[in-house]
Amino acid sequence: MSASIYSTTVDAESAMTKNGGDVELLPFVYDKHGGIIIEMTSPMDPQAFSASLKSLLSKWREQGIRGVWIKLPISLANLIQSAVEEGFWYHHAEETYLMLAYWLPNTPHTLPVNATHRVGVGAFVMNDKREVNYVSCVITRTQFFFQGEDINIGVVREVKEETGVDAEFVEVLAFRQSHKAYFEKSDLFFVCILRPLSFDITKQESEIEDAQWMPVEEFAAQPFVQKHELVKYILEVGLAKSDKEYAGFSPISIKSAFSPKQSLFYMNRRDLEKASGPIINTQKDS
Amino acid sequence: MSASIYSTTVDAESAMTKNGGDVELLPFVYDKHGGIIIEMTSPMDPQAFSASLKSLLSKWREQGIRGVWIKLPISLANLIQSAVEEGFWYHHAEETYLMLAYWLPNTPHTLPVNATHRVGVGAFVMNDKREVNYVSCVITRTQFFFQGEDINIGVVREVKEETGVDAEFVEVLAFRQSHKAYFEKSDLFFVCILRPLSFDITKQESEIEDAQWMPVEEFAAQPFVQKHELVKYILEVGLAKSDKEYAGFSPISIKSAFSPKQSLFYMNRRDLEKASGPIINTQKDS
Repeated sequence: MSASIYSTTVDAESAMTKNGGDVELLPFVYDKHGGIIIEMTSPMDPQAFSASLKSLLSKWREQGIRGVWIKLPISLANLIQSAVEEGFWYHHAEETYLMLAYWLPNTPHTLPVNATHRVGVGAFVMNDKREVNYVSCVITRTQFFFQGEDINIGVVREVKEETGVDAEFVEVLAFRQSHKAYFEKSDLFFVCILRPLSFDITKQESEIEDAQWMPVEEFAAQPFVQKHELVKYILEVGLAKSDKEYAGFSPISIKSAFSPKQSLFYMNRRDLEKASGPIINTQKDS
Repeated sequence: MSASIYSTTVDAESAMTKNGGDVELLPFVYDKHGGIIIEMTSPMDPQAFSASLKSLLSKWREQGIRGVWIKLPISLANLIQSAVEEGFWYHHAEETYLMLAYWLPNTPHTLPVNATHRVGVGAFVMNDKREVNYVSCVITRTQFFFQGEDINIGVVREVKEETGVDAEFVEVLAFRQSHKAYFEKSDLFFVCILRPLSFDITKQESEIEDAQWMPVEEFAAQPFVQKHELVKYILEVGLAKSDKEYAGFSPISIKSAFSPKQSLFYMNRRDLEKASGPIINTQKDS
């Protein structure tokens, strides 16, 4: 299954459809894959919306347009049914809008899929006395990122929010993928090790149990750790990193070939740097 | 930010609201967090739906219910506006339904967030002649999983679909997190190394460039690799794994403390196994 890439629009146009001259305008733009995005912002009579849509779809079919999107703010929920009657289906929704999609050709669509995963973090944080901050160590309920947040930033924020402890990100030690966690969606849970920079536990959210520093062996001996395999492995990889030569993944910033955006690439940098010299004819810019 | 867990319902009830006795039934169940899920399956007059909803919300507010969900199939799009008028907002949508949510108390809601990430895979596949199957090596357009698919399964399927080559999963070598990739959502791209089990390139999808085996140095020397940092690092970690001591993450199956479900936990097993003996007082069941 491959997916074409939806991105910013590159061209804009407003359409006057020719249906006796009295069909209302629909605001639309071309996306960079030759598809169409109708973005409604103003109220419109549902009948007029239907008539305009029908007329435009007919024109676009002749033109060989494939994908058509309609973005409807929640305030225009009264237009959804008209779009559905013309053959549109739901692509995704956020709090304030619904995105509908339609595929004009008689072929399976190649539109990008909706988001499939939530992402959470668990943090292993141990002080010099080999005490773990056990709320940080075992965030059993997945803590979700703000949309658009980097893992190495989000985990530091979560630990601060939950415990008041300042810490710096070291590595991703492991991750878990699970399915059908919430609304049939999947879940990725990144286990990170953080180095504490402050030690006073000053606050916690009302929903979590009390946070405190606790000797790691005492924590590990608790029955629930024995039966909770995720917690057990968080401790194992955390201690393997603290005491032994365990290497996790740490990030470097790389740039995209398609835009000026930077993103983070997480890898086993220790092992990569051990590999003698550049392996291939490219410059490393770690 | 923490999130309560939406899951299967644990109790069911149908409600006859008492509004002169002529308010229609709405099918609802309690979720296991004390919230309510209304799942509409049959057509209903929008006015009757509004009246029932208003009456139920008033009752639930008195009862101290916090979260209320409405799941509407696309065939009942005509009921969306009524729900929005009662204060519901869009939580998420899939092709065939829209999920709306409402929070009764005057506090910030603690409902779980919508999915935030897409997940894709890139595969590094090299044969004994140090030739990479360059389509597999550089899947520049993120290939998305089917919903609910494991990374180690999905990447093998993708390589087979794109190139016809059978291969077995070895390790996750690295991953990239990027943001605002598609519809403001974020993207996680897992770079995997696969061991080829067959070598004939027998088919490819029409959308991709021709696949072929190509000497890795020749592939690496191409200008686009030099300027495409993601591809460059896929090659670097792939070759570091093939030729050197690079350790990535490989999965073991673990069970959840909360359900009989299994999930996969990916970690640096080589380093963990090097760590002498059990580090803490738990049994390893690798």
